[in-house]
Amino acid sequence: MSARGRLYGVGVGPGDPELMTLKAARLVKAAPVLAYFCKQGQRGHGRAIVEGFLAEGVIEEELAYPMTTEAPADGAAYHAALSGFYDAAAARLAVHLDAGRDVVVVSEGDPFFYGSFMPVFHRLAADYETEVVAGVSGMAGCWTRARTPIAYGDDVLAVLPATLPAAALREHLARVDAAVIMKLGRHFSKTRAVLEELGLAERAVYVERGTMAGEKVLPLPPAGYEGAPYFAMILVPGRGRSL
Amino acid sequence: MSARGRLYGVGVGPGDPELMTLKAARLVKAAPVLAYFCKQGQRGHGRAIVEGFLAEGVIEEELAYPMTTEAPADGAAYHAALSGFYDAAAARLAVHLDAGRDVVVVSEGDPFFYGSFMPVFHRLAADYETEVVAGVSGMAGCWTRARTPIAYGDDVLAVLPATLPAAALREHLARVDAAVIMKLGRHFSKTRAVLEELGLAERAVYVERGTMAGEKVLPLPPAGYEGAPYFAMILVPGRGRSL
Repeated sequence: MSARGRLYGVGVGPGDPELMTLKAARLVKAAPVLAYFCKQGQRGHGRAIVEGFLAEGVIEEELAYPMTTEAPADGAAYHAALSGFYDAAAARLAVHLDAGRDVVVVSEGDPFFYGSFMPVFHRLAADYETEVVAGVSGMAGCWTRARTPIAYGDDVLAVLPATLPAAALREHLARVDAAVIMKLGRHFSKTRAVLEELGLAERAVYVERGTMAGEKVLPLPPAGYEGAPYFAMILVPGRGRSL
Repeated sequence: MSARGRLYGVGVGPGDPELMTLKAARLVKAAPVLAYFCKQGQRGHGRAIVEGFLAEGVIEEELAYPMTTEAPADGAAYHAALSGFYDAAAARLAVHLDAGRDVVVVSEGDPFFYGSFMPVFHRLAADYETEVVAGVSGMAGCWTRARTPIAYGDDVLAVLPATLPAAALREHLARVDAAVIMKLGRHFSKTRAVLEELGLAERAVYVERGTMAGEKVLPLPPAGYEGAPYFAMILVPGRGRSL
């Protein structure tokens, strides 16, 4: 009876391969099976990050989402399709684990911070030895490249999805010292209007693809800007203690 | 006329040296001057993390705070002392930079996320070529070791200092899906009472020294617990989308 393989959820950071941790690099290099999430027809950022680190003869498991993450995330059909997708993904990985092969699941940023690894963790961690390796978050990659210290001393920081209704965004932003607003895409203009209303537009910084090729750091684009991709972020830095 | 040195603010992660990034390890190994913050009479976590990575003959600059971070942070005397300390620290580093020596300032976690590097950045980045390297945050080290995915999908996450008054903690916690409460120390009982009141105590996880020697992961300790150090955290994970 052979021992079961071990499951690893490995954060590979915000984009620049050199922002992988030493541990992530070690585990990816040693992985007999490497799994990664991606959109249909694309290779995915996670896979691109580890390109130079793969073991000879590694078995790759591409886990391609059944739809893009831009689809409305509240419908029952979407939920069922995605849940079935994760069931199938977990089953594919379990085949390797049962055969005694370790599996490294690559996770952009940090695996437990809005990570695609989490549904796999929930399905497999009770049955297989599982280790999770923290990574540099995408937002840290963005604020670093924007040269924008984000939170100081006793600041309250909120991480907000731009998908929230304007009223909810306003309520949160009015109460905190610093914020990261993620998933901009088609929610840019709504988000910009709220920042303007609260007098935060001047302080805000817009970032796309922090630490990656094609990185963009800009003052807040004008209202009506249509170019924000889904993964663009707005940073609202705290104001510090003038230390 | 020799070229000036370059200033690096380098995140070295939450504690486990293997959670340094490849870039952090490369820069620390190459650093002619390594600076780190610490309390009087202690070596500091940042310095401990890089212990195995120092260059032969490296010049070390120990920047010892004039008081502990447990002191009340709102007094004018405290503010003036700390501000003067950072002025002096920046001046010490500038001597090396002017002499053409690169300086790596070690920052636990991520340099721009409540980082001790920020006051140095504000003092020197306009005058010296400066690069900041993102790191794995302390909170990511904690939620990973606690095996607690922290935020899902469209969750709103708040990062809150336990130093806030109970009413403010309550207001924030009542409005978000997930939270990280930092700087517990003597604020533990107040914080616990608020979590209890909001029905969040069951979901909360208590973590000390995530990824470090002496790591502790516990369900929320009982009211009156006196053992929480300053750097202990409480995690309130989001509830996910049952994917």
